[in-house]
Amino acid sequence: MSRDAAVLWLAPMHPLAEGVLAHEMRACARAMRVIDDRRPDASAILKDLFPHTGRATVVGITGNPGAGKSTLTDRLIEVFRKEGKQVGIIAVDPSSPYSGGAILGDRIRMQRHATDPGVFIRSVATRGHMGGLSRSARDMVRVLDAYGCDVVLVETVGVGQDELEITRTAHTTLVVMAPGLGDEVQAIKAGLMECADVFAVNKADKDGADSTVRDLELMIALGKDTMIAAGNQRGHTVHGRAAGLGTSFEKNSEVWTPPIQKCIAARGEGIAELAAHLDRHREWTQNTESGRARKRLRLGEEVRESLREALIEAASERLSDELDLAVARVERREVDPYSAIEQLVALFKSR
Amino acid sequence: MSRDAAVLWLAPMHPLAEGVLAHEMRACARAMRVIDDRRPDASAILKDLFPHTGRATVVGITGNPGAGKSTLTDRLIEVFRKEGKQVGIIAVDPSSPYSGGAILGDRIRMQRHATDPGVFIRSVATRGHMGGLSRSARDMVRVLDAYGCDVVLVETVGVGQDELEITRTAHTTLVVMAPGLGDEVQAIKAGLMECADVFAVNKADKDGADSTVRDLELMIALGKDTMIAAGNQRGHTVHGRAAGLGTSFEKNSEVWTPPIQKCIAARGEGIAELAAHLDRHREWTQNTESGRARKRLRLGEEVRESLREALIEAASERLSDELDLAVARVERREVDPYSAIEQLVALFKSR
Repeated sequence: MSRDAAVLWLAPMHPLAEGVLAHEMRACARAMRVIDDRRPDASAILKDLFPHTGRATVVGITGNPGAGKSTLTDRLIEVFRKEGKQVGIIAVDPSSPYSGGAILGDRIRMQRHATDPGVFIRSVATRGHMGGLSRSARDMVRVLDAYGCDVVLVETVGVGQDELEITRTAHTTLVVMAPGLGDEVQAIKAGLMECADVFAVNKADKDGADSTVRDLELMIALGKDTMIAAGNQRGHTVHGRAAGLGTSFEKNSEVWTPPIQKCIAARGEGIAELAAHLDRHREWTQNTESGRARKRLRLGEEVRESLREALIEAASERLSDELDLAVARVERREVDPYSAIEQLVALFKSR
Repeated sequence: MSRDAAVLWLAPMHPLAEGVLAHEMRACARAMRVIDDRRPDASAILKDLFPHTGRATVVGITGNPGAGKSTLTDRLIEVFRKEGKQVGIIAVDPSSPYSGGAILGDRIRMQRHATDPGVFIRSVATRGHMGGLSRSARDMVRVLDAYGCDVVLVETVGVGQDELEITRTAHTTLVVMAPGLGDEVQAIKAGLMECADVFAVNKADKDGADSTVRDLELMIALGKDTMIAAGNQRGHTVHGRAAGLGTSFEKNSEVWTPPIQKCIAARGEGIAELAAHLDRHREWTQNTESGRARKRLRLGEEVRESLREALIEAASERLSDELDLAVARVERREVDPYSAIEQLVALFKSR
């Protein structure tokens, strides 16, 4: 028996992974559920699928709720479908006893694509801890990638830190804004400027659209200078001399300047142009050293973040009694939390 | 030599901790800097201070940027100072190359208190990873508590997930809203409804203030039902039958219903009433079983979160070469990230 055959025999593929690779929609849905619920099989499925990933273009879509993100996503799906592409959508929902249907309701219009076999829509809910959500989103993207989606759109509800983490799992982050919402200022405060690769100024027929575009241009120019000054310290991959205020990827430069695309999603205007910007950004990540460096950086972040999660999971499992005991002791002020943690880390390592 | 003396001899107090306990402002500022920078001494200082904490009332203040949070915080400081209380303020700032002075500028008005020796103001900047910020904030609160502050206000800039985490380090979370910002809907989406203990509807002289109050009342009523239905599954400590729509802590019930206080911070109206609500919530956390259960729950969260951070720190230190190697191997697709993580966890445990 050859070595490869032995390996295959030792590790047969998980049936759900097989189904996903055979482009079976039902297997894909089931695999995603196993992963979202973090059932024991999740890891085996993901390991089997990983070698078949890396082909899809992954776009994170974020922006304030009033900006018309869902309508715009819906229109982007339309454009990609016309190009004959398979599209996957991961709709990230905060699970709150207050939200429930209200927010999902916004997304009902997307459901018109649900009967199209070339479109796969799946919601992911926030699971308790924050890190968990971006991990789930990333793993789901991998399933859709292996399943055969050409494009995977990851749409978030708001623009919080959690959402920013999620957009970091994408190749390209699209930030959707609308005039008159004060989004520009919010965007700065939320740290959106650093993560945006492409801007869409939606509802461009409304008053103030031009001034939103001008504000963004100014902030992009300002931010570029700041980032260049800050250099690699901040982990930014944008470097070199800023190439003016141009809103496009310049062939002779490695610098990516986020383009700003005006559109009216409700009427489908500007959407094809937006899709083209997304394509060009994907190209940039593949064909420039800066783009590749960014990909490496994000992969490193993923591994570190996953390690963090794996360690705490292993620790919670092995130390659950001791953890409860430590909490009770800290509560009774018999020990300070800092010493308690040191003792728990030592205990974890000794088991 | 008695046993206690021996312990004292073995562990002399850190000089900065001594200074903090002697109410030396300069030592307090230096201790906070050591902690924010996570210098090696941080842990020793915090261990020394912990036995002297637990006295201060800690209030987290959050809400959208337009709601007038800083003005309101400024007015609250005034009220507490009139009561002769020592006040500490921790202003949490997102560190973004785009924000910088702009956001801090909002807070300049607070600086009028900076020359008052009864007020201690300190900014905390976001440090790379999200968990780090709430840890820093919590540790700084402990320093100010040990220093002798009666009240510590932790003010956040926005209402993202990160800010929510921070408010969980407080005894009482005050959510500031203003009419006409669409804050009510944002609040739901951001998960603010679950964490709010007291609502302030600021700019109450503006159109729409009453309808903001009504919306909040409705959402509180709805949320209570949902939380009761969900029971302990979601880890909520509010239980029992909802006590109607009353906006106050009812003596015969353990249920805390978030009160809604209208105010006009710019003119100082409604602020004393707001401070009284905060006091009553603090009482509730101390004098009811539900309140104490919530405190325990949060302490447990802290210990788990700190353990997570400690484990990843220890792992990064011991595995830094292997981590880089793993990232490179995943990048070359020689291994999937899931298997790489399993190997790193095993390696961490074996060292």
